[in-house]
Amino acid sequence: MTVLILTTEEDVTADMVVVCLNESEVPVVRLDPADLTGSVALSGEFAHGSFRGHLSSGGRLVGIDGLRSVWVRRPGAPAARAATPSAWLTEESAQALYGMLLGSGARWMNHPDAARRARYKPWQLGLAQRCGLPVPATLITTFPRAAREFAGRHPDLVVKPVSGAHPQDPPRAVPTSRVSPETDFAAVAFGPTLLQQRVAKRADLRLTVVGDRLLAARKAVVAGADPDEVDVRFAASAEPWRPAGVPPVVAAGVRAYVRAAGLAYGAFDFAEDGDGTWWFLECNQSGQFGFIEVDTGQPIARTIAEWLARPDAGGPEPAADPDGTDAATR
Amino acid sequence: MTVLILTTEEDVTADMVVVCLNESEVPVVRLDPADLTGSVALSGEFAHGSFRGHLSSGGRLVGIDGLRSVWVRRPGAPAARAATPSAWLTEESAQALYGMLLGSGARWMNHPDAARRARYKPWQLGLAQRCGLPVPATLITTFPRAAREFAGRHPDLVVKPVSGAHPQDPPRAVPTSRVSPETDFAAVAFGPTLLQQRVAKRADLRLTVVGDRLLAARKAVVAGADPDEVDVRFAASAEPWRPAGVPPVVAAGVRAYVRAAGLAYGAFDFAEDGDGTWWFLECNQSGQFGFIEVDTGQPIARTIAEWLARPDAGGPEPAADPDGTDAATR
Repeated sequence: MTVLILTTEEDVTADMVVVCLNESEVPVVRLDPADLTGSVALSGEFAHGSFRGHLSSGGRLVGIDGLRSVWVRRPGAPAARAATPSAWLTEESAQALYGMLLGSGARWMNHPDAARRARYKPWQLGLAQRCGLPVPATLITTFPRAAREFAGRHPDLVVKPVSGAHPQDPPRAVPTSRVSPETDFAAVAFGPTLLQQRVAKRADLRLTVVGDRLLAARKAVVAGADPDEVDVRFAASAEPWRPAGVPPVVAAGVRAYVRAAGLAYGAFDFAEDGDGTWWFLECNQSGQFGFIEVDTGQPIARTIAEWLARPDAGGPEPAADPDGTDAATR
Repeated sequence: MTVLILTTEEDVTADMVVVCLNESEVPVVRLDPADLTGSVALSGEFAHGSFRGHLSSGGRLVGIDGLRSVWVRRPGAPAARAATPSAWLTEESAQALYGMLLGSGARWMNHPDAARRARYKPWQLGLAQRCGLPVPATLITTFPRAAREFAGRHPDLVVKPVSGAHPQDPPRAVPTSRVSPETDFAAVAFGPTLLQQRVAKRADLRLTVVGDRLLAARKAVVAGADPDEVDVRFAASAEPWRPAGVPPVVAAGVRAYVRAAGLAYGAFDFAEDGDGTWWFLECNQSGQFGFIEVDTGQPIARTIAEWLARPDAGGPEPAADPDGTDAATR
């Protein structure tokens, strides 16, 4: 049984996982859907109530029913590097590739349905709340008056994107920034704006979830740090990430979150306040982990490799058939 | 409790449903996400473990928690008609709007997750097979050799898109067409191609599913019809659609299908062969129904209105939380 990794060629983080899989002698096929109709080919036949499908990459053939797991890491858009790329070819290729893979019995990290849903920030905040994770007061609005009123109640504010990275090519991360309550919020009318009460933090926390495993890292805010450096990704700090323990109440909340979200992998960002409370900021279902592993020495790549290699169903997975009917009719 | 309809202004099919809802005096808000940051505005606040959100359209305000159901009919891309449209604004607006709506307790026709998954043709074919619905032998491939070999076994062939409509603006339907087994299949290497055994049909069947209700219509193939007119959408036929009964085995298969797919609405296309067997061709989760209602007089719009208006949870819905954990942590 083979592990299928969907990612770009330049993905060094995936390389770390491939090394671990190779050491365990688990068969791996790695391909970028962007190479479809070039070095990647596919075929699947439905006949007499059965399905037989194959993928080929660089001349290596693997059966769809021989897939143990699929790691959707950083795949390119299907057929993006075809000789004559087009929106139509990408759509046809996406439907063919993912449509076939969705019918395989493979375990997913992460299932495309779960991954897509998990990207919605408002949905994340609501789920975190229901799982008992503290969420800073947050407003998403196109009403200037609502923004002004919120800023009156929560004068220490940050603004951040509702979605994630700016979809330019290559995508650009948009930093979280402080915003003064005296700001003229009139422009809110021109685009949904996410305002959040700033957490006066003493540390940033990154909690990486791989199946049942929780690996937490903490980066202390150094004394005298500029309070305007809100976004740890852009802050100039010599302080490394260090391994951290996870308070039981947070562990329970995070486990409930990934189970409900159907995620096998999630990178949670928290801010730790002066009381030691972990405030939920977001859960990135495809968050990077290499920089954490480098700083902390935590075996994240190995843990992912073990999850992908495991022959049994292990992590939480979203149901293609929520009520089990599908299984009953198989 | 309000019914929210997401669709374009010109959608006359939605008008039919709105008329029924108005007759029942059920409050309706209809809006096009394309009008976001113009005549449509939104706001939602997460604070102290709760969420309060609102939508406004043309000055009418509705609370997110006051939504009874959401009908995703033919919505435009969010903020597409904003004063300064951009991919970034569309992404931000989509995340804000659908992210908030996903956190509502409303029933969906159809839930965005279910809708997206239901579009994958290979997934459709596999699910139909598992639900006991006969599927014509089908090949999806980029291997010319596989196409030739399949054509050898199934010389009476049609070719159709793997996805659906061509994504030009406005989208263009690509007809299903016959293809000779002597075709040079070399071009298959340049894009996934769907080949299917042609069903020698005596009728086309359209089965519209609305919650638990099945409404079937049949259009007989007239004697002497051109066998190259495979695609009923493009065939010149004076024969109308007429109401039809549904064989129990088909009804059971279709019910299993929509339950497993988490669909509250689905437009199934079947081809009826000389033996009376219904061959599954596809299930379009957002298929048109107006033309069927006009021909047959079947009350599809009214049935949809009743489903949307029902205060209780009625139709099948996909679980945002497949294993029920989410509910347990609420």
